[in-house]
Amino acid sequence: MSGPGAPIRCLIDGVSGRRIPVTDRGLSYGDGLFETLLVRDGRPCQWRRHLDRLALGCRRLGFPTPAESTLAGEVAGLLRGIDAGVLKVLVTRGDGGRGYAPRSDPRPRRILTLFGAPDYPTEWHLRGVVARTCRTPANQNPLLAGLKHLNRLDSVLARAEWSDPSVAEGLMAGPGGDIIGGTMTNLFLWDGAGLLTPAVDGCGIAGTVRGLAMDLAAVMGIPCVETRLARADLIRARGMFLTNSLAGVWPVRRLDAHEYDPEDLPLGLIRALWQEAQSPEGPGQ
Amino acid sequence: MSGPGAPIRCLIDGVSGRRIPVTDRGLSYGDGLFETLLVRDGRPCQWRRHLDRLALGCRRLGFPTPAESTLAGEVAGLLRGIDAGVLKVLVTRGDGGRGYAPRSDPRPRRILTLFGAPDYPTEWHLRGVVARTCRTPANQNPLLAGLKHLNRLDSVLARAEWSDPSVAEGLMAGPGGDIIGGTMTNLFLWDGAGLLTPAVDGCGIAGTVRGLAMDLAAVMGIPCVETRLARADLIRARGMFLTNSLAGVWPVRRLDAHEYDPEDLPLGLIRALWQEAQSPEGPGQ
Repeated sequence: MSGPGAPIRCLIDGVSGRRIPVTDRGLSYGDGLFETLLVRDGRPCQWRRHLDRLALGCRRLGFPTPAESTLAGEVAGLLRGIDAGVLKVLVTRGDGGRGYAPRSDPRPRRILTLFGAPDYPTEWHLRGVVARTCRTPANQNPLLAGLKHLNRLDSVLARAEWSDPSVAEGLMAGPGGDIIGGTMTNLFLWDGAGLLTPAVDGCGIAGTVRGLAMDLAAVMGIPCVETRLARADLIRARGMFLTNSLAGVWPVRRLDAHEYDPEDLPLGLIRALWQEAQSPEGPGQ
Repeated sequence: MSGPGAPIRCLIDGVSGRRIPVTDRGLSYGDGLFETLLVRDGRPCQWRRHLDRLALGCRRLGFPTPAESTLAGEVAGLLRGIDAGVLKVLVTRGDGGRGYAPRSDPRPRRILTLFGAPDYPTEWHLRGVVARTCRTPANQNPLLAGLKHLNRLDSVLARAEWSDPSVAEGLMAGPGGDIIGGTMTNLFLWDGAGLLTPAVDGCGIAGTVRGLAMDLAAVMGIPCVETRLARADLIRARGMFLTNSLAGVWPVRRLDAHEYDPEDLPLGLIRALWQEAQSPEGPGQ
């Protein structure tokens, strides 16, 4: 378990506080976005990729992106004196009355929350994780796919399918049966020569470490294709790994009853990914 | 426009207040449900249907349904001295830390908010409404379909497609192209002998007035079939109407460039539906 735990600090629109109005559209409709960043050495990792995805989401949802300088200043303040943790940046469309129609002059609300560092077992990235398949389908909507928006009931219900703490992750399929990824991770299959990862144009989230993995693979000359994957492709794969901003990269050693040898994966890529994913690069001390 | 407007009163877990913790899972993930009830003569309409849908949603999301007696008491208190308005009952899974995994002992949060009465033009139900089709697809997820959960970004983005106040509603299709219904209404087509309405087993919401319409049609001997509908079925239809807990029933007089004669609809059913949808039956003075 990634130890939920209470927030350590929280800034709402730059002011210390822990409560928002019930009229916030993030609550009413999930009308907003979030980013979850690993904090190391007092600074967030993959800052640029998280900001870019947030900006893309704001454009697609149709409200102003918070200024980078504002976010950077608030993050630096929030992380003062902090070495390691998890930074959650949540942006909603702000207050609204009743009804779906957004205001023509939205005033987005920024909610920055600092949590304790993740406590995933170290052996999960060293020796691989056990994963399972979930029955809960992933939401399908081409307009929302890829974004890290606040409509996450599908992941919540999929994650509620198991409580065995030795199972690290569950894989989800879309309504049509295509494999999409984990409840909180992206999936990569290795066929011995190249990588395959589910396209996120109908379902799923374009993870920051997913993007990093694709970029590193390109630099290292490893082919990587975004495609449709069926359950049979999981069995056929020589190996697989999962990516996520907090976990970095987890090789999979077992999926349901099927075993994989993490040593068969392209270990140079895995190591580079592990290092890069945890490189502090954002604002901080 | 259905005048958004600020809340008149709000009760959170039975206590007057307007703010919730940022850790509420309703905000984090849309992990909750809501009901929007018309209030007339100081009491909510279609109370039983709203409670039943809420209870079904709680069971499907896997957290305890608030006791009916608790809700009834809180609603009666909230509506004291009020004649007409809109009552929003929102229930979330309650507080949670970071991460999708729900607590094993969820403590749902009840948020009851009272808004002013809807101000839809009277002629909309007398002479029919103008509707349009939306580009934004409805989310597809068979496990979530039918529920009035808090993951409503698809309706928000569809509703943001137009600002012309003379257009009452927009119709949405699922990712596969099937017609699902309006952004905030259910759709019925009339072929001169019976009704057709989109099935809500993949996308869409099982509206309370939709259920009422189907029950009334059965009583009146009017066949009504839940089915898949394509865009061509809209053009072929002799007439159509929209249902919603606040609007009751709206005949459609124009959809995009296509005109329909509201007088061709089964007017006995429309009238009965209009009356029943606005019959106060819940707790109150």
